[in-house]
Amino acid sequence: MKNFFKVVDIDNVLARRQSFPVMDTERLPLDAATGRILAEAISAGLDIPGFARSTMDGYALQAAATFGATESNPGYVNVVGSVAMGEQPDGKVGPGEAVRIATGGMLPSGADAVMMVEHTESIDDRTIEIYKSVAPGQHVVAKGEDIAKGDTLLKRGQPIRPQEAGLLAALGCETVGVFRKPRVGIVSTGDEVVPVTAVPGPGQIRDVNSTTLAAMTTAAGARPRLYGIVQDDFGRLKSTCRQALAENDMVLISGGSSVGMRDFTIEAFEAQSAAEIMVHGVSISPGKPTILARSGNKPMWGIPGHVTSAMVVFRVLVAPFIAHLGGLDDRYRRVVAVTCRLGRNLPSAQGRVDFVRVRLADRDDALIAEPVLGKSGLIHTMVKADGLIRIPADVEGLDKGDPVAVEIM
Amino acid sequence: MKNFFKVVDIDNVLARRQSFPVMDTERLPLDAATGRILAEAISAGLDIPGFARSTMDGYALQAAATFGATESNPGYVNVVGSVAMGEQPDGKVGPGEAVRIATGGMLPSGADAVMMVEHTESIDDRTIEIYKSVAPGQHVVAKGEDIAKGDTLLKRGQPIRPQEAGLLAALGCETVGVFRKPRVGIVSTGDEVVPVTAVPGPGQIRDVNSTTLAAMTTAAGARPRLYGIVQDDFGRLKSTCRQALAENDMVLISGGSSVGMRDFTIEAFEAQSAAEIMVHGVSISPGKPTILARSGNKPMWGIPGHVTSAMVVFRVLVAPFIAHLGGLDDRYRRVVAVTCRLGRNLPSAQGRVDFVRVRLADRDDALIAEPVLGKSGLIHTMVKADGLIRIPADVEGLDKGDPVAVEIM
Repeated sequence: MKNFFKVVDIDNVLARRQSFPVMDTERLPLDAATGRILAEAISAGLDIPGFARSTMDGYALQAAATFGATESNPGYVNVVGSVAMGEQPDGKVGPGEAVRIATGGMLPSGADAVMMVEHTESIDDRTIEIYKSVAPGQHVVAKGEDIAKGDTLLKRGQPIRPQEAGLLAALGCETVGVFRKPRVGIVSTGDEVVPVTAVPGPGQIRDVNSTTLAAMTTAAGARPRLYGIVQDDFGRLKSTCRQALAENDMVLISGGSSVGMRDFTIEAFEAQSAAEIMVHGVSISPGKPTILARSGNKPMWGIPGHVTSAMVVFRVLVAPFIAHLGGLDDRYRRVVAVTCRLGRNLPSAQGRVDFVRVRLADRDDALIAEPVLGKSGLIHTMVKADGLIRIPADVEGLDKGDPVAVEIM
Repeated sequence: MKNFFKVVDIDNVLARRQSFPVMDTERLPLDAATGRILAEAISAGLDIPGFARSTMDGYALQAAATFGATESNPGYVNVVGSVAMGEQPDGKVGPGEAVRIATGGMLPSGADAVMMVEHTESIDDRTIEIYKSVAPGQHVVAKGEDIAKGDTLLKRGQPIRPQEAGLLAALGCETVGVFRKPRVGIVSTGDEVVPVTAVPGPGQIRDVNSTTLAAMTTAAGARPRLYGIVQDDFGRLKSTCRQALAENDMVLISGGSSVGMRDFTIEAFEAQSAAEIMVHGVSISPGKPTILARSGNKPMWGIPGHVTSAMVVFRVLVAPFIAHLGGLDDRYRRVVAVTCRLGRNLPSAQGRVDFVRVRLADRDDALIAEPVLGKSGLIHTMVKADGLIRIPADVEGLDKGDPVAVEIM
């Protein structure tokens, strides 16, 4: 019997991220960059808008010409022209003058506000009545008001959402520098595991983890590559691990991470070049028999074979590593959690963080987190779950009605 | 001047979804199906596991043989063999007998529980001491306990997350029927709008909406196709709209959706075959001048040109339509919102739903939603925002400290 592992806590494991370098970078067309992590800081090379711009359909004028105008005491203004969209207006707006302008049009020289068309009436071709006063700057976006030339707008390590993509479009960035997605080699182990395509015989089960972990890897922002199922054999696991290391930036082996007779993962890791076992055992449930190791600059994970444990470990530990390798700055990391009340009492052991699968349910118009019953290894419990709640290590359990944060998964 | 529009509320617009048919279906390899919407119900064709399975490394035995065993009063059991992984064990476990078994192994006939190896000690090759009693069924997953043959497990219209993909793997589904992704044709309008690749002249701005809306379309589960920038010209808008309709399942035109001189979108929609204007004007801010129309079975949207308004309308109205077209059952729709406190007073007009951009900030260890200042049209306000809060139509405003739900975007 091999030695039992020494467990460390989640923060201890997560802190090891910093010892791994982030990916190198690549340039992508802007249209392909959403969802990626920016690898360069972006400053504004120009003012946006580059000119004072109307935000309404109406008349560009000097605000002073409208002061005091009301429905019962309208003002009168001479219309001296109109602004062509996308062009610099010629001429100048003087006191008591106005120029027709549409939303997005460039304010002519002399004008400092826009009167909405809804608050005017045409008297004749040259004159309008106005029923409201406007303040200087009203219905106008000033030159550089959205973005001023020289502003630092986006930071290295920031994720590109649709709005950041829009900003990059406004700045004329046809391509953008992003971090390369980490490649993750995924290996399933176990003499009892057969491919999805096989019909399991007595004592056999299909490989669920390759599919599940590949899907989670993609969702975490990396590129999965599958290495199939390796039997419980040290030599074969070692050589598959070596191949996966050569072709990827991280290796993920599910099954065989514990300390039993068939658990060759740790030895397969030790046999790689520049290998170091960093963690064996994490104080979480499920997921305790987890291995973090490195081969040079590449992390190697040994995670439990039970799919639910594997999913929890992936989410809590592996995904933050992928985010780090992928260049995401920690300040932009966010775990989306829905706050609600717990639907029943939950016992928990002290000294470890418990992750409990819950389903969100509406009860009496309030959102309730209902623990999903069933043994930890069962895939159907993950299918029924909307997310996880974590019970801290120093808490003995939670009571029905306690507020909980459900991390959506 | 054309007529001003008659506004309707959000629910009225969303209810129109049901009048559009959902996409047809396609079959995908399982590995490509995560993130898609299931187009078939999935029932279990087999029990999972197909046999009683150990969840621990240890000894399979009859629980009765362990009753009363403690550290100070250990029991003794004869080891009569071991279970080979992935194979049906031969022989039978009798009273007082045990068989070595690893996690995932098939329980031999006669055994009803597993004793963890940690609670045993080897006395000799044939005998172990045991320090704990186990109950029948302990450390065992029964045949069909995860999934029983015949169970309906997944429903048509259900999204495929990594765990659903795992379940499909367990069932041996090499391919899976999903709804086809809706294709969305995206058109920007405006004489003042120039492509990202151009340097804007005086009075011109770059096309931000094509990039932003394409990115949101992808995130919403559809396939965007860009039709570039159309000048403010009825004939050209009509023909571009016709082409986009022919090549897509939905058309999205930004700009020109209001009632001004340059707002040709509604006429371009009316000129399509089997056209009907369903909505013109929605009681939301920003986003009031929104058009929903149809050409036969295809929705056409006219949304505001200001990018922030366009993003709000997309999120609140267009994305739920895409979800519907894409086959998502409403019961699986979810908007992830983070509950926290408002950081300052917010005025709001009654009679419309206000969407306010907010940034999430930690203050005194509590999460606060800080409204992002700046005029509605400015892209930088979306970049600074983490999400939106909605102020209902019947509320005049919110006070600092009020609880709010921030819809992450």
